[in-house]
Amino acid sequence: MTEQIEMHPQRWGNPANASSLPESALGLIELAFGVNEQPAVDGATPPAPVIGADAFAALADVVGAEQVIVDDAIRALRTRGKSTPDLLKARAGDLSDAPDVVVRPADRAEIERLLAVAVEHNLAVVPFGGGTSVTGGLVAARAPYAGVVSPDSVRMKKLVAVDKESMTATLEPGLRGPEAEALLAEQGLTLGHYPQSFEFATIGGFAATRSSGQSSAGYGRFDALVVALTVVTPSGTITVGSAPANAAGPDLRQVFLGSEGALGVITEVTVRVRELPAVKVYVGWRWPSFDAGAAAMRTPAQAGMLPTVIRLSDEAETAINPADPSAIGAENPGCLMITGYEGTQSAVDAKRAAVTALLTELGGTDLGEEPGEKWAHGRFNAPYLRDSMLDVGVLVETLETATFWSNRTRLYGDVKAALETTLGEGTIVLCHISHVYETGCSLYFTVAAKESGDPLTQWAAAKAAASDAMIAAGATITHHHAVGTDHKPWFHREVGPVGVQTLRAIKASLDPAGILNPGVLI
Amino acid sequence: MTEQIEMHPQRWGNPANASSLPESALGLIELAFGVNEQPAVDGATPPAPVIGADAFAALADVVGAEQVIVDDAIRALRTRGKSTPDLLKARAGDLSDAPDVVVRPADRAEIERLLAVAVEHNLAVVPFGGGTSVTGGLVAARAPYAGVVSPDSVRMKKLVAVDKESMTATLEPGLRGPEAEALLAEQGLTLGHYPQSFEFATIGGFAATRSSGQSSAGYGRFDALVVALTVVTPSGTITVGSAPANAAGPDLRQVFLGSEGALGVITEVTVRVRELPAVKVYVGWRWPSFDAGAAAMRTPAQAGMLPTVIRLSDEAETAINPADPSAIGAENPGCLMITGYEGTQSAVDAKRAAVTALLTELGGTDLGEEPGEKWAHGRFNAPYLRDSMLDVGVLVETLETATFWSNRTRLYGDVKAALETTLGEGTIVLCHISHVYETGCSLYFTVAAKESGDPLTQWAAAKAAASDAMIAAGATITHHHAVGTDHKPWFHREVGPVGVQTLRAIKASLDPAGILNPGVLI
Repeated sequence: MTEQIEMHPQRWGNPANASSLPESALGLIELAFGVNEQPAVDGATPPAPVIGADAFAALADVVGAEQVIVDDAIRALRTRGKSTPDLLKARAGDLSDAPDVVVRPADRAEIERLLAVAVEHNLAVVPFGGGTSVTGGLVAARAPYAGVVSPDSVRMKKLVAVDKESMTATLEPGLRGPEAEALLAEQGLTLGHYPQSFEFATIGGFAATRSSGQSSAGYGRFDALVVALTVVTPSGTITVGSAPANAAGPDLRQVFLGSEGALGVITEVTVRVRELPAVKVYVGWRWPSFDAGAAAMRTPAQAGMLPTVIRLSDEAETAINPADPSAIGAENPGCLMITGYEGTQSAVDAKRAAVTALLTELGGTDLGEEPGEKWAHGRFNAPYLRDSMLDVGVLVETLETATFWSNRTRLYGDVKAALETTLGEGTIVLCHISHVYETGCSLYFTVAAKESGDPLTQWAAAKAAASDAMIAAGATITHHHAVGTDHKPWFHREVGPVGVQTLRAIKASLDPAGILNPGVLI
Repeated sequence: MTEQIEMHPQRWGNPANASSLPESALGLIELAFGVNEQPAVDGATPPAPVIGADAFAALADVVGAEQVIVDDAIRALRTRGKSTPDLLKARAGDLSDAPDVVVRPADRAEIERLLAVAVEHNLAVVPFGGGTSVTGGLVAARAPYAGVVSPDSVRMKKLVAVDKESMTATLEPGLRGPEAEALLAEQGLTLGHYPQSFEFATIGGFAATRSSGQSSAGYGRFDALVVALTVVTPSGTITVGSAPANAAGPDLRQVFLGSEGALGVITEVTVRVRELPAVKVYVGWRWPSFDAGAAAMRTPAQAGMLPTVIRLSDEAETAINPADPSAIGAENPGCLMITGYEGTQSAVDAKRAAVTALLTELGGTDLGEEPGEKWAHGRFNAPYLRDSMLDVGVLVETLETATFWSNRTRLYGDVKAALETTLGEGTIVLCHISHVYETGCSLYFTVAAKESGDPLTQWAAAKAAASDAMIAAGATITHHHAVGTDHKPWFHREVGPVGVQTLRAIKASLDPAGILNPGVLI
């Protein structure tokens, strides 16, 4: 049960799937940025654990001695997340943010006792799910704590209950995306949540960070899929979600969704599920411009006619990653859109026909299923490519935001300009819209620049400029990457002093000793 | 701007629309309950205001002396809400919960200063919107305060902004349902929020109580329609809602939605709007039983094929209020369902055809538009009928809950039994499902019983038994009536001690003096 594929501390994903860049790509990269091999430090080890014998014994008393792990290799695997700065630090041999001890509780009762031990021994608690944070969500403050303990949900992978009449399923937090889908598929069901981190991220993490997936247009964001959840806090355990909807005061589910381990440890999540789709079809579209495509996306979103997947690349992203070069290129310039349909054959046929008619009327060109299938085939691969780029000295990172439709053009221009200005000539900024709503959409940027001698400082400046641009434009600092430590200053500007005060009040009440993911979010 | 139709302190609705019972109905009521005329006390006045001269002067300094009102008639109009116990008390001449002073601020700045004055002078603040609460939401604790001030939003009725690209509108809190719709209609837009309180309830109240309307299947509950809101608290003013969706921590919108005046005063609400529908069609259906109809409702809800309106009466409600007696009766027994379709002609045609095919396949009988139109015509009339029943000594009240589909039958049986057992022989309990979701539905009960000599105590026992049954069944204490003071004990059982502690922590931080709607919700 605790055997699972682990990511390399310095790289994304399943090591078996790591691929080096093809020669052709390498040539292009050399032209654009120059190639400057960046060897990573091998065999770095985290600092020796500082945890005391008393605390160690108390933890062992809760979960069993064999589930209290101070092994360097395991601690290295539980260090930070997978942002580019995280990878750069790991490549440089810096594992200073490693937890002192990894514990693997089996159930809620053990987590309740674990938090009591942490309070008693003044241990910071950094809940670990898939370790895919790209916002410093696993980089808690070390002071003034006597050590950092990382409760790992790897032993909590049960499908607890299925209610086929209500179409809900109750899942333990440690289930990774594919594991949850496999258990649900045995029942003919699906969750339909496919973020890029799908292969590694966990149910608990999806809830803690308000994850959003590539099929969220059809299935809903994760926060909309959660019907109920159980959270263990140092002040007690709470289960929220007594009905599909209610008017019983503030919606406390929405306080714990997005709480990023700072208010409690999520031990159970009840989600809405759907019938396993019989058919999945993905279709490519060409639009004359990003503006034209983006304007067109608004129509199905506001007409209640969204497909399961709808995403649009801007000119730069389309040019670099053309899913169908023959259909979009010098002779047929424009932008690539992917639409996807999942469900029964008849539902897929009906929705596809309606969306096709609408998009055609709006000026799109149907490119058929080939580009759609290519996108679907590679949909989780981008982070592997980042590793290969970092290997040759190209700084690659992503960031994302969301705003209302009327603010889209400004936000796109401002963030792009901030990145290009800060990183300088030769910087490539790509963008796509990956999530649309009735009132607005997300913007997801990928940035590539020649690595400077100090890439951490180089990126920090660019990230700050882009974040400033988002807040200045009245947009959100994050549509689906969460806050962590990296977004905290901008998050606090976004919600304002009364918002921060509200969150601090909740934190102070539920976690009076401040042991839960200190420094993250609040 | 401040001229609006006011409800009689002892009755629901527009006095011009009050109607006495037709002779035929009176005959039936006499058969069922006996008729026992209940004359109301005329000309009762609220207790003399206790507010001090200093506080009065400070309030006048904020809003102007002419907007600080101690007139008995106005204070009577701002006393309690419109639950049956509220009406019974008013009919008995008990206006003891009247505010000491009604103030009418013009804008956010005045509300900010008003709260400062309230803190300084230890005044309880009971925000007043439409006064349609049926859960004691306007019955704040009087002790230990130096007086009760009711800020009335009657002067805040502006449509602040419209964004047709993002399809959002920003509204002031004092707009009643028809006023908001009229302003939006001038722009070709609609909010589509039609609770039974539509004619009197306000935008601010809809947000403060998580209102849900008769067309919420199509347009969404009010909490789902809110994109952003501004709330004035004693600790400062906050605007939440920076994007259509985000992962920027807990969703603070959902903390202030449902906060019932206990955390702050809502001064502005930005909502999702839709095109004004060209066509509205309502259709009746007959189902062989409540169970059969309820099971059938689940299919369109889970297939993403919901009409704008879908509601189903149980056998008892159908028999008492047959929208089409010839189609449902002794020879064709069963239950009445109403489906409604709003939108463009082509969208209505397509949705109606799809839903009709589905419901027919599931065993429903299409009764055509006549019963649907009758329902639409009388959709806001039930509370008027309650007044007429109270006039002749019949105790009538409603209550509602929601649960997951698999728990529907149990909840229905348990609540019905609790009411019948407590109120005794001859009690009539009617029920309908008015809101459906993928995972469950609401249940809305109407109860009629012969009034005892002490109807307040009589109803309190029945209400407590029904509420106990809801919580014991794991359902919510309220799907759309909110918590107020009446539901508070059960609400606290529903969210548990950690939930209550969380809400109290927020309250203590935002309202440290505890002046906001004291005793309500928290």
